[in-house]
Amino acid sequence: MALQNTTFLQACRGETPAHTPLWLMRQAGRYLPEYREIRSKVSFLELCRTPELCAEVTLQPIDRFGFDAAILFSDILTVFDAMGVTVEFSPAPKVAEPIRTVADVERLKFSPAGDELGYVFDAVKACKAALANRVPLIGFCGAPMTTASYMIEGSGSKDFVHTKSMAFCEPAVFGGLLENITTLLVDYLRGQVEAGANALQIFESWGAAFSVEDYRTHVLPHVQRLVSEVKAFGVPVILFLRGNAGLLALAKETNADVIGVGWDMALADALDVVGRDKVVQGNLDPIALFAPEEEITRRATSIIEAGRTAKGHIFNLGHGISRLTDPAKVKHLVDVVHSA
Amino acid sequence: MALQNTTFLQACRGETPAHTPLWLMRQAGRYLPEYREIRSKVSFLELCRTPELCAEVTLQPIDRFGFDAAILFSDILTVFDAMGVTVEFSPAPKVAEPIRTVADVERLKFSPAGDELGYVFDAVKACKAALANRVPLIGFCGAPMTTASYMIEGSGSKDFVHTKSMAFCEPAVFGGLLENITTLLVDYLRGQVEAGANALQIFESWGAAFSVEDYRTHVLPHVQRLVSEVKAFGVPVILFLRGNAGLLALAKETNADVIGVGWDMALADALDVVGRDKVVQGNLDPIALFAPEEEITRRATSIIEAGRTAKGHIFNLGHGISRLTDPAKVKHLVDVVHSA
Repeated sequence: MALQNTTFLQACRGETPAHTPLWLMRQAGRYLPEYREIRSKVSFLELCRTPELCAEVTLQPIDRFGFDAAILFSDILTVFDAMGVTVEFSPAPKVAEPIRTVADVERLKFSPAGDELGYVFDAVKACKAALANRVPLIGFCGAPMTTASYMIEGSGSKDFVHTKSMAFCEPAVFGGLLENITTLLVDYLRGQVEAGANALQIFESWGAAFSVEDYRTHVLPHVQRLVSEVKAFGVPVILFLRGNAGLLALAKETNADVIGVGWDMALADALDVVGRDKVVQGNLDPIALFAPEEEITRRATSIIEAGRTAKGHIFNLGHGISRLTDPAKVKHLVDVVHSA
Repeated sequence: MALQNTTFLQACRGETPAHTPLWLMRQAGRYLPEYREIRSKVSFLELCRTPELCAEVTLQPIDRFGFDAAILFSDILTVFDAMGVTVEFSPAPKVAEPIRTVADVERLKFSPAGDELGYVFDAVKACKAALANRVPLIGFCGAPMTTASYMIEGSGSKDFVHTKSMAFCEPAVFGGLLENITTLLVDYLRGQVEAGANALQIFESWGAAFSVEDYRTHVLPHVQRLVSEVKAFGVPVILFLRGNAGLLALAKETNADVIGVGWDMALADALDVVGRDKVVQGNLDPIALFAPEEEITRRATSIIEAGRTAKGHIFNLGHGISRLTDPAKVKHLVDVVHSA
């Protein structure tokens, strides 16, 4: 059976859909009362590990707002299960035994994704069944460095001192770690596509941990390999490299189908960096959803107009939606984008 | 009596000093055992409020490393004392009663700096006396928005949702708050110069909270006024607008004597943005001090070479030094810069 709403996939391919497609990073989440209702009964990790509940929360924003794509409800750190790294969410992620020395890195295991992450693939299947081809489903993972930084820092970090120290003092160890993580991520994303994901997004949430030069040296080659190998699975690949104009220029050096743009710069300026021959995704400031409706309209319209000068544009926020957001403002945004 | 080491002030003026002058943001701080020794006896706020101890810790890195400038030991939030806002450090700053509504903003008082901040001016005098003209003393303040964001958020923030909501929903209230803060900061910096400060640095630590467009609309005019009015006091003014290339371009639109550059981009690329007719300060990644000495040498040398293409260059980090830094690495950096 064919997808009923193909606007998102058309935009990914640089075709011209009937309207600008729209989804929001973290669209299934704490700003929705129906999500908080479920979370009042199960922990975050239990939710991630229960395919039926993943499907339920994945569909909540589709049912409520009519977004043009669903994104699998999961977490970029579930992949730690295949590496023998234990992470807790309280609510921020915390790794009790961070990976900091050569010995720490050597004792990591890298199991085939299917052995430990079958529950994610089952969640993809459950989402696909529940969606019944209404809209496409996006699978995802964290980029290799973002993934590694959580296990190296152990918790949130402002300066990524342990991650960068490893890169600067033991570049071969750091590079080897990222290489092994990348190989696992390829396997993990293959499993998601085989389970039915129609597109994939790679989240480099912490790209700005490194300077532009250091990102190019220590991180970019792994992202390039990940994107290239994953593209072979035949679905569009979106790279969201959060950071600044310098990092955005590096995103262009991968062959991702779609480049995600953060909220820190105007989309028109971002297009000057990546080129108008690219498909881009973004980039409303999530905090703009706290502004009055007419200001949301103004900003969304400006982004849509800039997006029309690109090869393709998928409307999104420039970062995950805030848990404090009023769902009524989201409804307004959807109306603006779909009627533009 | 004249200053013995004028390299820093020469560089600020675009003259050619005998060597590239060097100081480090947060150079008086927790990475130094002699600082931790003093802090084991007094709280952070007690230290800020005791001029003799401020002078002692201000001089510690001068005595140990021979930096070319001292910076007053204080905090950007001491200025809250003149606004009736109570802040605690535990160790991160925390404001028990954040300023979020129009009524909150209206009940702020704005006392003359001399009434409530005399202890800072006394600290400047104590530092000057202790320095005995060995090197110049830098006074400082937070930029208006960075200052406001601490009182609006109440504690550290990732998304500055309250600050930006005020700017987006009540722009006149937000603008009025920044205007009043700016007027107080001018008064505060005047007091520091009258007490003997030889230069001033304005820290826009959280500039990247706003997109480039929103910074231009809601924040930049206040920074421009602050810099312009403070320049009348006759000492060099350094503006450190931490963020990215887009914000750096805005720093150029103030008439600051020196533009501080963050570590996220190469100094050569930053000079392409601000122009080589500017004096710049920066921009070694603080985490590069965790690298082996030869890597520190390589990076510092590259920055010095780029700096030689500018009108003037003051060597510094691109952000405050990490408390985990080995002082021996700082000693190595000083040797590299002074012998370059």
